[in-house]
Order: sequence, then C-alpha cells, then structure tokens
Amino acid sequence: MAGRGLVVIGLDPGSRVTGYGIVREVSGQTSLIETGTIRTPVKKDMATRLGVIFDRLQILIRTHGPVEAAIENVFVSKNPSSALKLGQARGAAMAACAINNIPVSEYEPTKVKKNLVGLGNAPKDQVAFMVAHCLGVKKPDWAEDASDALAIAICHLNERRMRRLTGC
Amino acid sequence: MAGRGLVVIGLDPGSRVTGYGIVREVSGQTSLIETGTIRTPVKKDMATRLGVIFDRLQILIRTHGPVEAAIENVFVSKNPSSALKLGQARGAAMAACAINNIPVSEYEPTKVKKNLVGLGNAPKDQVAFMVAHCLGVKKPDWAEDASDALAIAICHLNERRMRRLTGC
Repeated sequence: MAGRGLVVIGLDPGSRVTGYGIVREVSGQTSLIETGTIRTPVKKDMATRLGVIFDRLQILIRTHGPVEAAIENVFVSKNPSSALKLGQARGAAMAACAINNIPVSEYEPTKVKKNLVGLGNAPKDQVAFMVAHCLGVKKPDWAEDASDALAIAICHLNERRMRRLTGC
Repeated sequence: MAGRGLVVIGLDPGSRVTGYGIVREVSGQTSLIETGTIRTPVKKDMATRLGVIFDRLQILIRTHGPVEAAIENVFVSKNPSSALKLGQARGAAMAACAINNIPVSEYEPTKVKKNLVGLGNAPKDQVAFMVAHCLGVKKPDWAEDASDALAIAICHLNERRMRRLTGC
C-alpha cells in the first residue's frame, strides 16, 4: 500500500443516515478520496435498511481499499430506544469493516474535536472548517454527516501519526 | 423450496452469545436442522466480535438455506449502554440476513411465549419444554440462548401458518 499512501475510512453511522469519509495520507499530506452519506429507505423494515448500510459500505471498501477504519464512540446518555437503533446501524457498519479485515478504532467525540480544533467542546462549524482546511478543499459541498465522518478519519490519521512518532 | 419444506432461522443476538435455531416445516410438521450459539472472542475489540457474528451466520445461511428469519423485538427498558451493545449485535445479525435476501420478522417476547405456551408471561423452562416437544426431541442438550432462538423460529412458523389460514 506504500505506493498509494495510507487509505482510511471514517464512519458516522445512523439508521437513517450514515456518513462516510475516505481519505488518503501520503507523506503527511491528507487528501479526499470520497465522502458522502448512505440514506436508508425509511419505509422499509429495519433489516433491509441495515442491509443497505452493509452493502454500500462493502462496495466503498472494495472500491477504494481502506486498510483501517475509525468510528466515533457514542455518548450513551440517549434513551435506550435510540441507543438500540444507533447500535444496530453501528453493528452493520462495523461488521462490514470486520469481514473485510479492516480494524476499527473508536474515538470519543471530544477527542475528535480536540484533535482537529484543539478544543473538546468546539462547535460543529469550526470542526467542519478544519476538515475542509486539512483536505485542501476551499468550498466543501458535503453534508454534515459526511463532514463528521471525515473528521473522524482525519483524527485517526493524526492519532496514528502521533503514536508512530512517540512510539506508543 | 416445496420439495424440502420451508426452512427458517430464529435468532437471539447478543454481543457475547448469539443463539440460533434453524428449523424445517414439512406438511405442518416441524423438525430441527441445526441449533447452537455463536460465542464471540470477549478479549477482542467489538468490530471483530461483530464480524464473527456476521460471518458465522452467513455460513449457516449458505449451508442450510433458510428463506425467512425471525428475531425477538427487544424490551428497551435496559440501560442505554446495554441497549447500544445489544443493538450492535442485532445489527450485524440482521445485516447478514438482509444481504442474503432473507426477510426478517420481529416478534415481541410475550408474543413468542404466548404462541408456544399460551401465556405471555410463561416461565423460561416451560417455553424450553414446548420447544423440545414441537421438534420431537426428548432430551434436548442445547443451551438456553439456542432454545430461545428455536422458540422464535417456531413462533414464526406458527404465525405464518395462521396468517395463511386466516388470509391476513
């Protein structure tokens, strides 16, 4: 994979909308490969919708060949019903990574914000601004869920580089 | 599928243990094909464990060819953290069914008990007894999670038959 740099995928799963962001790092330089959202058919049953998440992610993985994935750890302060739905979407997304032999790293939301902006409680638009800046995109036209997924992917690359440099 | 009857799979997912039960119905007679539990490697990360659930279920589906699946609807009275974990396991299991084009029906736990025993609050061992009885197994040696999954599969077959007979 050295010739084409390191490709990673960031994920922001939800049962209605799942954001994804695939980025490449070559010599410390980060660039965008593809980002977007997977919208599930809301009128269909839950299993069908989870199948759509799995299927689309598997196609993205096979198309772009990310070797690592990153996902946000979830605040579980939500109600149990929402947590169950969110868990189901996460389960489909994480299974798609796992069966394609892609390790999945989890990051706390505050960690992602701090990593990109320097503040654990940074506002969303500031994080989105930094995402576009890191990728060298002047006028980003991507959705909020896509931007969130990109933030997680960039955070993962930064953390990974830091671990390599500090040896821990 | 008429020659070999109708094959369905019942599922009782969990992040540690996922029970499954595959049963066949021929001319109103129900028989056991395979039942058991998928135990995930507890020391591994969650994505790897979800991949194991997905992978094992996919092998079972491809081996025995169930055409329909059934899963218990979950009481969401648990805490959000447990609901998230349970949701993740359900997500991996339901995605495995969906991408193999198997529709998944959901049943309330009280519905499953009432269907098998006649009482929505029937004790577990009474349900287990009826599961073994329905399948013509005198001394069942399967685990509780496997028995629960079989109960869901049998409930689905009964409900399906009822719907066919009543036309609704």
